[in-house]
Amino acid sequence: MKGSLLYEGKAKKVYTTDESDQLILSYKNDATAFNGKKKDEFEGKGRLNNLITSNIFEYLHQHQLETHFIKALNETEQLVKKTTIIPLEVVVRNVAAGSITRRLGIEERTRFTPPLVELFYKKDELNDPIINDAHAYHLTDVTEEELSSIKQMARMINEQLMGLFREVGLQLVDFKLEFGRLEDGTIVLADEISPDTCRLWDLETGEKMDKDVFREDIGNLIDTYETILQRLEAYTCAK
Amino acid sequence: MKGSLLYEGKAKKVYTTDESDQLILSYKNDATAFNGKKKDEFEGKGRLNNLITSNIFEYLHQHQLETHFIKALNETEQLVKKTTIIPLEVVVRNVAAGSITRRLGIEERTRFTPPLVELFYKKDELNDPIINDAHAYHLTDVTEEELSSIKQMARMINEQLMGLFREVGLQLVDFKLEFGRLEDGTIVLADEISPDTCRLWDLETGEKMDKDVFREDIGNLIDTYETILQRLEAYTCAK
Repeated sequence: MKGSLLYEGKAKKVYTTDESDQLILSYKNDATAFNGKKKDEFEGKGRLNNLITSNIFEYLHQHQLETHFIKALNETEQLVKKTTIIPLEVVVRNVAAGSITRRLGIEERTRFTPPLVELFYKKDELNDPIINDAHAYHLTDVTEEELSSIKQMARMINEQLMGLFREVGLQLVDFKLEFGRLEDGTIVLADEISPDTCRLWDLETGEKMDKDVFREDIGNLIDTYETILQRLEAYTCAK
Repeated sequence: MKGSLLYEGKAKKVYTTDESDQLILSYKNDATAFNGKKKDEFEGKGRLNNLITSNIFEYLHQHQLETHFIKALNETEQLVKKTTIIPLEVVVRNVAAGSITRRLGIEERTRFTPPLVELFYKKDELNDPIINDAHAYHLTDVTEEELSSIKQMARMINEQLMGLFREVGLQLVDFKLEFGRLEDGTIVLADEISPDTCRLWDLETGEKMDKDVFREDIGNLIDTYETILQRLEAYTCAK
């Protein structure tokens, strides 16, 4: 039973449920980029990100990686364990693309070995500034052990996702994760994993298959996301 | 014997000497701020920063902290061990002031316990962007052990400097360090420590006693730096 609206973000609405430790995430059709400066709406986007995230989180569960995800409820909504989101964006980069190329003058397509982990402080008013570990301890309630475990989880998720996307003909360039705290304090992966939060390049053509299509106006967002979903579902069903 | 000009920076010129492992630093009268966007020249500034840095580096030596400094040669020049500068600016903050208040929305005068250590990539074209440890490994030749030792040195230098400045009636708010590699690979403190690279507030009046006087046009730079030098010399001679 969906209860009251708890919070509305840029891409999702969060509702209470009858269970105090569960929430419903309702995926919206809105697309935003450049910290909300570019905006549009795409019929069907909410469905695609809900189903893609559900597919990926189930895959992570099969590989012993814990997340807040319980199940998809319908085409645009999913049931999740209630968490308190830690205001950190954890970015994992396998290949240089996007902001890091301009920020640090690193050539696009440079490989990071090992993958690079970055932290950003999730704060719209400040444009989600990049931070280091010491800032994270000052700005959030994470301890040194917890932050180290969050980074370790991010690296393990990266390993699994690289494998999954490779199987469906995609290179996982980089992605953003958010973590939340369950009522007992345990930290688990939360939020979503979708073409909104990953950079994915087609392994054969090099084509961009993610939100850069919208950021850079270089293709049809819905067609692109639909392709991702179909490839993931074809792979999952074949197994 | 001063040899040829090796390099000219914003605040200093670097000359070779007869000894292949020694250099002469010649302090200029130029003042720059906001990554070179604001510029001026102050008669006597080179002398003040040379003598202040010499005084502070001698103090660090007395406290078993190694630096590149050998000795002051005259009013504006000092002899130093030749190092290859590691392109990192290591910033230690005891109290929030300046860029961090805007960048992370931290209120000015917030105390950092423990002191906060930040790394910036020394690269004018990129406006010296803030980085994390993983970026430092990618962008420079420092190893994990070396970076950990650099941060430890920065914290120990902070301890000593806080004590020194407290004795002369100043609060050490924050400061920037640069480290360099001697020919044998050893990493030592290099560059300068002066009111150009430290934020210093008068303990009694709260008055700004550093380059912020120039940045914010709130006082006479030469008078301010002269006061710092006189207080340091009075304390050193009294001991």
